[in-house]
Amino acid sequence: MAALRSYVNGDWHVPSEEGAPLHDAVTGEEVARVSSAGIDMARVLDHGRRRGGPALGELTFHQRAALLKSLASHLREHREELYALSARTGATLGDSKFDIDGGIGVLFGYSSKGRREMPNSRVYLDGAVEPLGRGGTFAGQHICTPLQGVAVQINAFNFPVWGPLEKFAPAFLAGVPTLVKPASQTAYLTHRLVELMLGSGLLPEGSLQLICGGVGDLLDHLTDQDLVSFTGSASTGQRLRAHPNVAARSVRFNVEADSLNCSILGPDATPGTGEFDLFVKQLVSEMTVKAGQKCTAIRRALVPAERVDDVVQAASARLAKVVVGNPKSSGVRMGALASLEQREEVRRSLKALLAAGTLVHGDPERVEVVDADAERGAFLSPILVRCDDPDRAEPHEVEAFGPVSTILPYESTEHAVDLARRGGGSLAGSVVSADTGFTRDVVLGTASRHGRLLVLNGRDAEESTGHGSPLPNLVHGGPGRAGGGEEMGGVRGVLHHMQRTAVQADPETLTAITGQWVPGSPRTETEVHPFRKHLEDLRIGDTVVGGPRAVTMADVEHFAEFTGDTFYAHTDREAAAANPFFEGIVAHGYLVVSLAAGLFVDPEPGPVLANYGLENLRFLTPTYPGDEITVTLTAKQITPRTNAEHGEVRWDADVTNQDGESVAKYDVLTLVAKRPEERG
Amino acid sequence: MAALRSYVNGDWHVPSEEGAPLHDAVTGEEVARVSSAGIDMARVLDHGRRRGGPALGELTFHQRAALLKSLASHLREHREELYALSARTGATLGDSKFDIDGGIGVLFGYSSKGRREMPNSRVYLDGAVEPLGRGGTFAGQHICTPLQGVAVQINAFNFPVWGPLEKFAPAFLAGVPTLVKPASQTAYLTHRLVELMLGSGLLPEGSLQLICGGVGDLLDHLTDQDLVSFTGSASTGQRLRAHPNVAARSVRFNVEADSLNCSILGPDATPGTGEFDLFVKQLVSEMTVKAGQKCTAIRRALVPAERVDDVVQAASARLAKVVVGNPKSSGVRMGALASLEQREEVRRSLKALLAAGTLVHGDPERVEVVDADAERGAFLSPILVRCDDPDRAEPHEVEAFGPVSTILPYESTEHAVDLARRGGGSLAGSVVSADTGFTRDVVLGTASRHGRLLVLNGRDAEESTGHGSPLPNLVHGGPGRAGGGEEMGGVRGVLHHMQRTAVQADPETLTAITGQWVPGSPRTETEVHPFRKHLEDLRIGDTVVGGPRAVTMADVEHFAEFTGDTFYAHTDREAAAANPFFEGIVAHGYLVVSLAAGLFVDPEPGPVLANYGLENLRFLTPTYPGDEITVTLTAKQITPRTNAEHGEVRWDADVTNQDGESVAKYDVLTLVAKRPEERG
Repeated sequence: MAALRSYVNGDWHVPSEEGAPLHDAVTGEEVARVSSAGIDMARVLDHGRRRGGPALGELTFHQRAALLKSLASHLREHREELYALSARTGATLGDSKFDIDGGIGVLFGYSSKGRREMPNSRVYLDGAVEPLGRGGTFAGQHICTPLQGVAVQINAFNFPVWGPLEKFAPAFLAGVPTLVKPASQTAYLTHRLVELMLGSGLLPEGSLQLICGGVGDLLDHLTDQDLVSFTGSASTGQRLRAHPNVAARSVRFNVEADSLNCSILGPDATPGTGEFDLFVKQLVSEMTVKAGQKCTAIRRALVPAERVDDVVQAASARLAKVVVGNPKSSGVRMGALASLEQREEVRRSLKALLAAGTLVHGDPERVEVVDADAERGAFLSPILVRCDDPDRAEPHEVEAFGPVSTILPYESTEHAVDLARRGGGSLAGSVVSADTGFTRDVVLGTASRHGRLLVLNGRDAEESTGHGSPLPNLVHGGPGRAGGGEEMGGVRGVLHHMQRTAVQADPETLTAITGQWVPGSPRTETEVHPFRKHLEDLRIGDTVVGGPRAVTMADVEHFAEFTGDTFYAHTDREAAAANPFFEGIVAHGYLVVSLAAGLFVDPEPGPVLANYGLENLRFLTPTYPGDEITVTLTAKQITPRTNAEHGEVRWDADVTNQDGESVAKYDVLTLVAKRPEERG
Repeated sequence: MAALRSYVNGDWHVPSEEGAPLHDAVTGEEVARVSSAGIDMARVLDHGRRRGGPALGELTFHQRAALLKSLASHLREHREELYALSARTGATLGDSKFDIDGGIGVLFGYSSKGRREMPNSRVYLDGAVEPLGRGGTFAGQHICTPLQGVAVQINAFNFPVWGPLEKFAPAFLAGVPTLVKPASQTAYLTHRLVELMLGSGLLPEGSLQLICGGVGDLLDHLTDQDLVSFTGSASTGQRLRAHPNVAARSVRFNVEADSLNCSILGPDATPGTGEFDLFVKQLVSEMTVKAGQKCTAIRRALVPAERVDDVVQAASARLAKVVVGNPKSSGVRMGALASLEQREEVRRSLKALLAAGTLVHGDPERVEVVDADAERGAFLSPILVRCDDPDRAEPHEVEAFGPVSTILPYESTEHAVDLARRGGGSLAGSVVSADTGFTRDVVLGTASRHGRLLVLNGRDAEESTGHGSPLPNLVHGGPGRAGGGEEMGGVRGVLHHMQRTAVQADPETLTAITGQWVPGSPRTETEVHPFRKHLEDLRIGDTVVGGPRAVTMADVEHFAEFTGDTFYAHTDREAAAANPFFEGIVAHGYLVVSLAAGLFVDPEPGPVLANYGLENLRFLTPTYPGDEITVTLTAKQITPRTNAEHGEVRWDADVTNQDGESVAKYDVLTLVAKRPEERG
């Protein structure tokens, strides 16, 4: 059997030794061999930094997002091939979809986030401009720029496709090249995934490298600009994080470790309620999907003391129907663990766990299997443990990484919160209850020990994505035992790959750096009205000034009558004057912005297609009848849209009165057409 | 001389041994003794967690912010006393103000941020609601809740007041109790600061503890809910961060270490320009303020090769005028280093540095001092080094933590960027130039190695706060050598003390958890119009529905004429139909929101005082003449203001047409009066 190749330095590397064998989880046959012998780790990192980083750096966030979308489509076309290989890891088709479709979904998710929530440029602005002086000549803006290093991604064996993709997507979007290091046990599947990704021809050289086998002295060569994202056991994570070079250079090191996640049954969810069934169904599903080899799986089921018997009975009944066996066989609901070693590991943990509880379903040593050999394949029965003393340490500390859960009784809401917290930090928890008071208390009481909390009940069950499913737009990671890391979470996950820098400067310089017009910067009043400019011709700072226009009492009275907005501050002189903020009748805010539009708009058909919104509108000074308003509209941000005939332009609007005071400030959002020849 | 007491477990602890002596930096006299002997570290942490955390947890962000403001005012009244003690650390009055007034400023800054940018509640919402299903029954919201532990704050000797306060303020605002551990050398000043803070009577018991002396086995007792903020040497930071218990429990560990910060002179800033003078003046100021003992001070001055002579000459001339001596003496510009040991340390580093350069100003072994003994006090002359080979390692790696800087030549913009990056991660850098192209290239080229970058030129000099001044609203910290940490940065610094948790639930449950109305939650159409309710009577979810009202062609024509907004889409049937987004003439967006206001407003004088703004307005479906609009306005967030007669209410506005489609969605921001008896 040939050893898996690594993709490094722009080429496929064949290991200089035979390598260690990897076995089919179901049949025990050898699938591949793995070794990284002969790879110069320092050179690999350097290749990523010198080739991948600069190539990605030339693309905007939107361009990278578009590549992620194409890549996702490409992989989707090759799903069947990945499913087939995935079956050899012990995964059923459902498990494989969870891993493979889930991973492809992360690419689509990040593509969408990148286009909708990031600018079409290379610098991400974090937060608002911070005024740093009264005169407006000095201000701060936090910018995020990509780390000039490599994202070293060390993945776990249980998600050979989703794992690499959920780490790759935000790194790529940030502009940071990836070095994937799969866990050996299932590396053959990740290997094929990376072959497909590279084969797509979509990725700039150096933006994705692969090391099958050990990382050797890789960590010795990291710099402050590299980062490591590790998923796996807590002990390995700790050891790598404490590596002298990692510590000396403050290398960002994100750890996602398995945790003792809990699911809490609400007191309202008595047998016969929908919530009771949801709880039991979810528990069994979390135990059996991926044969329980999910770092988010439910390990501790917390149940009102008086419901333990009911839950044991209902869960056991469901578990009894779970058919274990060859994942390729129809009807099989749960496949094999990833390896025989993994099964031994689970059996060892189970022994420790059973010191504190009793086995109520399953047999660690025996399982009936369909279409497979129960000993040569890494099969294990689902195991339900009941622990009547929830104060024992074992259920909160011993993790059996397989189809294993423990049912624990709780006495009160406070007790449930206390038990949940004893996990010492978890990736995910769930509360199954329709009682908003109970869920609020449990969620707020346990949030500081969780990265994600799911509330499940009859109201959301149909759309719920489930306890064990991390989503690209939500953070994945948890404190303490779960590793203290955080991945994904939409743009947050992208920013983990970037350096946040506070830039302090005069507005003109800030505009040049950020590509976004900062108030106080020069404005350009062009001869042509900016509404007459196509997207490509418009420049940041292009300005039109409209007015002045007097706002008369007649205007205010008429507007009140016309719109029906007869609020007393616009209609009742005495009542208006009694208002603590006004000296008398004031113009409607809506009137002010409506008149302002009349002052800045260019009426003829032209490139400006529509006003699709308004943001951050603040009325700063009342406008009284007799005041004269002037509006200054300045192009603030220009966002061309790839594959569209238009882009978005954000305008800074400043309405002032005859004394030069700002009456209203806001951003006007418009769609502006590209030049006819640039469309498409 | 008595040993400093520690404040732990609700009482002042007298050390059980004599302690080590601390000396006046100017006279060498003993000032105090320091020892933490006899303190049970586990108990101290426990006291913070059991008393401080819950006490803070009962307060809202606004209540904590108000306490910070009162505390700042209290400390300001005692400034003179702190200045006097500060002089004994070697600080001039200017240095003391930098430290003490700077620290008080951080309290004011955080108080302001807390009230303006955080809700008046106990849960912080991070980002928007994430829809997780098409049906709207399942959504996500990231919430931040305080860690249920203690913020262990290990401070450096150089800022005995600012250091503790800049760490305390965001922790307190987050709701996390503080344990201050000052560097021994200047602990007597921090000790007095904490005495004053506790003496104010403003702080809940357990929210602030103090340990003077070593931390003993404190780190062994940390849990995943505690965090450590360390400022000091990189080597100590690394050692503590790698502590087995810290690693095992993924304790958050933030490091701020000294770094080799650079300042870059732009090619445009030739002698005779304002920028040239600004550069030289700032360099000398950074060398001499706090006798150069600032982790943000300029260590490397990068200068166009052809300007090195000019800069050496100008800087030397300025340095020659710096009077060194007893900081209490008038006319003295630079005081002493913090200790004789510190001076020896600087001399050792200087030796290493001078292997790569020549001394162009100052004498490491001799300095003329005013009103003091140059040997018994830790005095040192300002030292300027010139290094003509910028590729030598020393200037980029050896940090002399005193009044020492090195001038290095650069050949091109790329070269300057490359040299700046060779610092391997810095807290702060500056570019002195009026050329926006140069500053943009340098800032974007070096941002990933910096926590903060300042651009200084004639446009912002008057308001600039300077290269070496971290500000509470900007992040402080840098990658790599600077420790990889991040402090302050406004709300960001508060969130470092909180756990971010993704909560997935149905809208009703999310509303109960977040205290903010989430779309899809039940609405309550009350008998009384919600505009007739005082702040205390209004409930999240209170709703008024207005309409339907037909929008006629006459309305659109009239609005166009009245406001002057005759944009073709509202006035020209043919041109409107040619627009890719419209089928014909559409109503103005401003008309739609104006009419909507007419539909939801209650006109009579009442508790609603004013509409002060609008947010997130999006026009989702065009409104055509003949359409009928209905508006649903729902109380979304209620923010009572302490010490005011009103609060803020944010309303969710949803304008729909006759087909139930949303035409416009936005938030309406209003000021609402409290009940007369609740005001003040």
